[in-house]
Amino acid sequence: MSKKPIVRVCISPALYELYRQQEGITVVVDIFRATSAICTALQNGVNEVIPVASIHDAKRYAEDDDVIIAAERGGEVVDGFKYGNSPLSYIDNPEIIGKTLVLTTTNGTQAIDAAKNDGALVIGAFCNLDVLTAWLINENQDVMILCSGWKNRLNLEDSLFAGAVVDALLNSGFEYDIDSDAAIITRLLYTSSGNDMLGFLENSSHRNRLKNLHLEKDIEYCLQRNTCHVVPKLTGGAIKNILKQPAY
Amino acid sequence: MSKKPIVRVCISPALYELYRQQEGITVVVDIFRATSAICTALQNGVNEVIPVASIHDAKRYAEDDDVIIAAERGGEVVDGFKYGNSPLSYIDNPEIIGKTLVLTTTNGTQAIDAAKNDGALVIGAFCNLDVLTAWLINENQDVMILCSGWKNRLNLEDSLFAGAVVDALLNSGFEYDIDSDAAIITRLLYTSSGNDMLGFLENSSHRNRLKNLHLEKDIEYCLQRNTCHVVPKLTGGAIKNILKQPAY
Repeated sequence: MSKKPIVRVCISPALYELYRQQEGITVVVDIFRATSAICTALQNGVNEVIPVASIHDAKRYAEDDDVIIAAERGGEVVDGFKYGNSPLSYIDNPEIIGKTLVLTTTNGTQAIDAAKNDGALVIGAFCNLDVLTAWLINENQDVMILCSGWKNRLNLEDSLFAGAVVDALLNSGFEYDIDSDAAIITRLLYTSSGNDMLGFLENSSHRNRLKNLHLEKDIEYCLQRNTCHVVPKLTGGAIKNILKQPAY
Repeated sequence: MSKKPIVRVCISPALYELYRQQEGITVVVDIFRATSAICTALQNGVNEVIPVASIHDAKRYAEDDDVIIAAERGGEVVDGFKYGNSPLSYIDNPEIIGKTLVLTTTNGTQAIDAAKNDGALVIGAFCNLDVLTAWLINENQDVMILCSGWKNRLNLEDSLFAGAVVDALLNSGFEYDIDSDAAIITRLLYTSSGNDMLGFLENSSHRNRLKNLHLEKDIEYCLQRNTCHVVPKLTGGAIKNILKQPAY
């Protein structure tokens, strides 16, 4: 019998060195809102997403007509930029069709930057949960879910999403890492959340932070499942959807 | 109305810098088994516990007749030492009465070492859960629970205990930190565990690691609640029970 693939969770980018894997697939998660935005942009006509860690790096693309630049820090659009981190800004927006989206955010793009040179890197969010887990199960390689958190601290929504992926993979023959309980913890969190994620997240720090910025619609959108039929994968510095034939 | 005290959780010593507090009370937790052992030793006649980070430091006490030395690495007693990390070795043991216990372990004493200069430091385990939380509620200061984990990775048993403390403090008027979800996550973990902690921990990495070392009795003991009527507190390099009159 061949060895079963492992699923692990790294709950904060600050712990990344402990969970780093040279091979296998890393799923980067930043539910509120970077990875939800990446999936949504690719679903709605953006050609590719280039994640950059700094605002300075983002500005280098300012003169390029084929580029849309999005920059967010602390939950708000950075001064001088039109787009921030809101997935809703990419829905029904003809301006983005066929363009390259250059994106820099507080947490999500930092996590991508940390993991970009280790194995394969894909993007996960509730909006692509089912197609992502189906793809991971089909790939049958070790999986590590990297939660972006909030400034290296744990957050509830990324942990919950990690638990959803762990649950799906465990149900399809993946195994826990014998040396780590983070996957067990996030799975228990997910299975005890029931289907009321919005209620479950009522007290979460990041939700309240966004609520104060009047981003309730973004929050609701980011917790909806399966609105995007994309598996965004990092290749040569750009994130592209590798699902060839969208079902809708 | 005066400000309510905060309860926070640091899920791994590797994240300590993000949660460090200059004031308030830090509760160090290493259920399997350092903090369970410290409580049990103090409950059963040890005068004080001196935590040391290295085996080399522990050996310095070798010539002192008033000292018992305990050294554990990777779950086993270190060669050349009589005691390791087992709480059971301190129960009904006349050899330890009135002695100083010098202790070095894989995870727990490292966490104590990290936090020893910040605010007050006390020791928590399931065996002193109720007296500890009663004392914390009475103190009415900000609390940070520092989980020792396993070599800086998260573990289930320390997270579960953190959740038990969070739950007790929240029920007594403490509040979550607005900038951190770790307390919410561990509390949800605890409240969904029900009363069957042994079953809940069935798959945990550390339990399986100890099971392989034939430490089932230790595991059962470490999950029992309220067998020790002690609040161990670090003062001047030594941990002493600060509860004046043990009830039993």
